[in-house]
Amino acid sequence: MTAVRGETRARLLDTALGLFTVHGVEGTSLQMIADVLGVTKAAVYYHFKTKDEITEAVAQPALDELVAILDHAATMSRPGPRTDYVIDEFVDLVVRNRVLVAVLCSDPGIIRATDRILVGEESILSRLQAMLTGPSADEGAQVACQVALAGVAMVGGSPILVDMDDETLRHHLVDAMRRQVGRPRKRD
Amino acid sequence: MTAVRGETRARLLDTALGLFTVHGVEGTSLQMIADVLGVTKAAVYYHFKTKDEITEAVAQPALDELVAILDHAATMSRPGPRTDYVIDEFVDLVVRNRVLVAVLCSDPGIIRATDRILVGEESILSRLQAMLTGPSADEGAQVACQVALAGVAMVGGSPILVDMDDETLRHHLVDAMRRQVGRPRKRD
Repeated sequence: MTAVRGETRARLLDTALGLFTVHGVEGTSLQMIADVLGVTKAAVYYHFKTKDEITEAVAQPALDELVAILDHAATMSRPGPRTDYVIDEFVDLVVRNRVLVAVLCSDPGIIRATDRILVGEESILSRLQAMLTGPSADEGAQVACQVALAGVAMVGGSPILVDMDDETLRHHLVDAMRRQVGRPRKRD
Repeated sequence: MTAVRGETRARLLDTALGLFTVHGVEGTSLQMIADVLGVTKAAVYYHFKTKDEITEAVAQPALDELVAILDHAATMSRPGPRTDYVIDEFVDLVVRNRVLVAVLCSDPGIIRATDRILVGEESILSRLQAMLTGPSADEGAQVACQVALAGVAMVGGSPILVDMDDETLRHHLVDAMRRQVGRPRKRD
């Protein structure tokens, strides 16, 4: 029974992300999700009481991965390899979640849901920045780092690059991010 | 009469942008705009038939400025000074329109309205990229340029940097963008 419930929940989140991509979070209703799944609205309610809960659940696995990357980076003592690791893993996470990232970057519904986790003291964003630039980076380095993070996320999820394969995109985004935070270019 | 109409239209667009910032485009109705202005919904209808028309009109002045920047850049024959000019003017436009850019970057309503102008052949985005990297740039340089453009727009409009004054923000964003498109750092 638990396995079936888990499977239904996973299908529900896949369906929600698909609908978010086409209609945006604001334009997607619980009823639409139920219709695509071929279940009643009550069956959706069984798993999630509000659309905000669904939105958070859709974004949660990628955010958990990001926290795991940061936790591992925090155990690395040498700044250079630590920065390299965070860049590689952040870009890889973005590229593996291109559809999700596209929705994340352009929807106030998801932005509201993730803001609590992404922004503020001890937020993922400030931890990411500290791992990339070090804790004593000047204001200019911090802005450059934010430009790199936002730029990589936006471009990774952009419909403009939808025809570029994952490996090529990953390679170019790593290059761009290394340039912005002042790391030497990787040899091919 | 025409002056009064023009003034009302300007007040209406200011009010709309203010409401978009708080409630998003999707969460703002023509009735809300009328209420804040203290006029009837019919008075709003006199100027704009749909919210999409308002959204486009809110974004139009900044987009017109961007086109003027690109038109001027197209008359410059030397690539280096042309790139420098586009970087300075693009960053300045973002910084002067921080509130608008914040809404532009995070709202599917405005993104839909501007996509027609921003994306596609001969779009503003492809013209911007061609002016910054030159027409024969390789794929990596194009991705780097897109990261810089998206990153500068996102960070320029970000609530995280709301306490940074315009001049400082402009300085750091120009530095970040120059680094990303491979221009030497400006001397202070």
